[in-house]
Amino acid sequence: MNKGVKRVSFSLLRPFVNDVFRGMGLPDEDADVCADVLLEADLKGLDTHGVNRLKPVYYDRVKAGLQSPVTRLDVVREGPTTAVLDGNNGMGMVIAKKSMDLCIEKAKELGMGMVAVRNSTHFGIAGHYAEMAAKRGLIGIAGTNARPSIAPTFSVEPMLGTNPLTFAFPSDEEFPFSLDCATSIIQRGKVELFARKGEELPPGLVIRSDGSTGTNPDEVLKDLLSGEAALLPLGGMGEETAGYKGYGYATVVEILSASLQSGYFLKAINGVNLGHFFIAIDVSAFTELDDFKHTTGDILRSLRAARKAPGADCIYTAGEKEYLTSLERKVKGVPINTSVQLELIQMRDELGLIKHRFPFE
Amino acid sequence: MNKGVKRVSFSLLRPFVNDVFRGMGLPDEDADVCADVLLEADLKGLDTHGVNRLKPVYYDRVKAGLQSPVTRLDVVREGPTTAVLDGNNGMGMVIAKKSMDLCIEKAKELGMGMVAVRNSTHFGIAGHYAEMAAKRGLIGIAGTNARPSIAPTFSVEPMLGTNPLTFAFPSDEEFPFSLDCATSIIQRGKVELFARKGEELPPGLVIRSDGSTGTNPDEVLKDLLSGEAALLPLGGMGEETAGYKGYGYATVVEILSASLQSGYFLKAINGVNLGHFFIAIDVSAFTELDDFKHTTGDILRSLRAARKAPGADCIYTAGEKEYLTSLERKVKGVPINTSVQLELIQMRDELGLIKHRFPFE
Repeated sequence: MNKGVKRVSFSLLRPFVNDVFRGMGLPDEDADVCADVLLEADLKGLDTHGVNRLKPVYYDRVKAGLQSPVTRLDVVREGPTTAVLDGNNGMGMVIAKKSMDLCIEKAKELGMGMVAVRNSTHFGIAGHYAEMAAKRGLIGIAGTNARPSIAPTFSVEPMLGTNPLTFAFPSDEEFPFSLDCATSIIQRGKVELFARKGEELPPGLVIRSDGSTGTNPDEVLKDLLSGEAALLPLGGMGEETAGYKGYGYATVVEILSASLQSGYFLKAINGVNLGHFFIAIDVSAFTELDDFKHTTGDILRSLRAARKAPGADCIYTAGEKEYLTSLERKVKGVPINTSVQLELIQMRDELGLIKHRFPFE
Repeated sequence: MNKGVKRVSFSLLRPFVNDVFRGMGLPDEDADVCADVLLEADLKGLDTHGVNRLKPVYYDRVKAGLQSPVTRLDVVREGPTTAVLDGNNGMGMVIAKKSMDLCIEKAKELGMGMVAVRNSTHFGIAGHYAEMAAKRGLIGIAGTNARPSIAPTFSVEPMLGTNPLTFAFPSDEEFPFSLDCATSIIQRGKVELFARKGEELPPGLVIRSDGSTGTNPDEVLKDLLSGEAALLPLGGMGEETAGYKGYGYATVVEILSASLQSGYFLKAINGVNLGHFFIAIDVSAFTELDDFKHTTGDILRSLRAARKAPGADCIYTAGEKEYLTSLERKVKGVPINTSVQLELIQMRDELGLIKHRFPFE
């Protein structure tokens, strides 16, 4: 563990995060939802989307009046299996949770449900909403646009968000299959990780405006901000290793997020006015849920049992590493680095949440 | 153009391909459907899925009794938005076309439709079915499993098919957005292309059983057949360039293709008993179709107008290159290489289709 990093238990972190959201002006029920999504990221080891974002992405933006702590969710249009909702730039996590609830409700009745959302804000980990469906015996799909960072194939300009395209399926194992990933190779948070460790980035993850690949993480972070560097799509630079496919999937997510609700897209996106989409498909409309779970589990077990590459310890399936991390963190708590420690203390003091004490002070 | 390659016009090729399918025992209407799908691949320049497959994949398999020329399609289960169909190993293209028709019908009524198919055979280009929906103002999604060729991350064993995950959207342009791609970096057909040209494969597309990357296309083709080499998932080898994402999407397609219909999967797949899935989503359930088309067109035009990488001529969007190729081939015909020429002559002679003459004989 890096210098200064301290583990904090969920029994301490959970009520604190809840109180911060309440202190920001969220109704109790909404504060619970936001704390759920945020802490699930910490539990699973998705540290780029956990408490480290509480201050910069949620607390600061609400304080600055960019997004509203009270979420008004309007129905723009509704059909038997579909809906368009307007989140009025409330809390993205509340908007997303209610949207997936509506998808599930519709899918339970008619087999499928889909909701497109306009005017939303950062909703945390997309996989949370896909897994909401999987936990209830449905297939869950979720995605969102985001501020521009991916360059199209043969371009150097950040145009598309990291645009996750996520799927979750029920299985007969302890955890659902859950693919929650950006359509870029890496995300900004990963570059920050290399910067903190003082390590060079591998080549081929980032493209600079001169067409070269950036490997100095401090320079890359600066250039990503100024638009002088962009993330490469899954598949990498040019066409040789099929980067046009990752670029294609990022575009699919941009279209699904914006076009169904006539919303903002590409360069017009900057933290608010986001578009999302959610899909739920009821497995029991096709087959017995237990059969689906069993077939899916068999596929996953077969994949893990494949012949390993020389030197490889283990073959994983999507969601497995996060599940293993969650088992460890449930017991040991979340590692919190020094800069996040200071943010937590600052919010605590500003909101006067005097009953909360941290192990790092 | 390579030695011996001859252009053949669609006005000549179309009735010939139709007659071959009829000669194989397909009903007239089904022969039309199969010819449509096959020749669309040739028209778009997707030469790995066109007439070059007529003999090895369709003619030979029907002759060998592996799949039936007469397609019996049974409804296993049906709900308001969903269905499971059994193709009884008839013609994959007929099964797929009818499945997407059913999705569109359901989506036109209730907003969404999804069909899972069991016991099907090779259905040609997945994008054809997604575009069926897009041409009628719906979002189309299609996918299929296939015989094992992709190795999971940290494995060297071919486990997953090239498992395409395709999306098509209506736009206000001359052609729909259409992302029709395998979840591997390349397909076997691409390796064959390198072998024909006598060129080395770029590193990082294929993994051999010793964990190294294969670059000699003749060796790779042999090793892919014996299972001593496997295709790498989109994103490449290991985790550094996020190959686990391509592996994850290939798994998503395997699960969607098999688990909803309790069908065969992974190593059990070999040309027949394939599983497919099709989804149609009616745009007009969310917004005016023209608004959707316009937003989508604006997204695509913005992407093409992005800052180009030094030395790059053009930024494309998914489906654009295929559209440009189709404009050229409509006029100039399809380039047919010598081995395919011989196959066409052989089928013509075996079926006694004496009225057909080719420019290469």
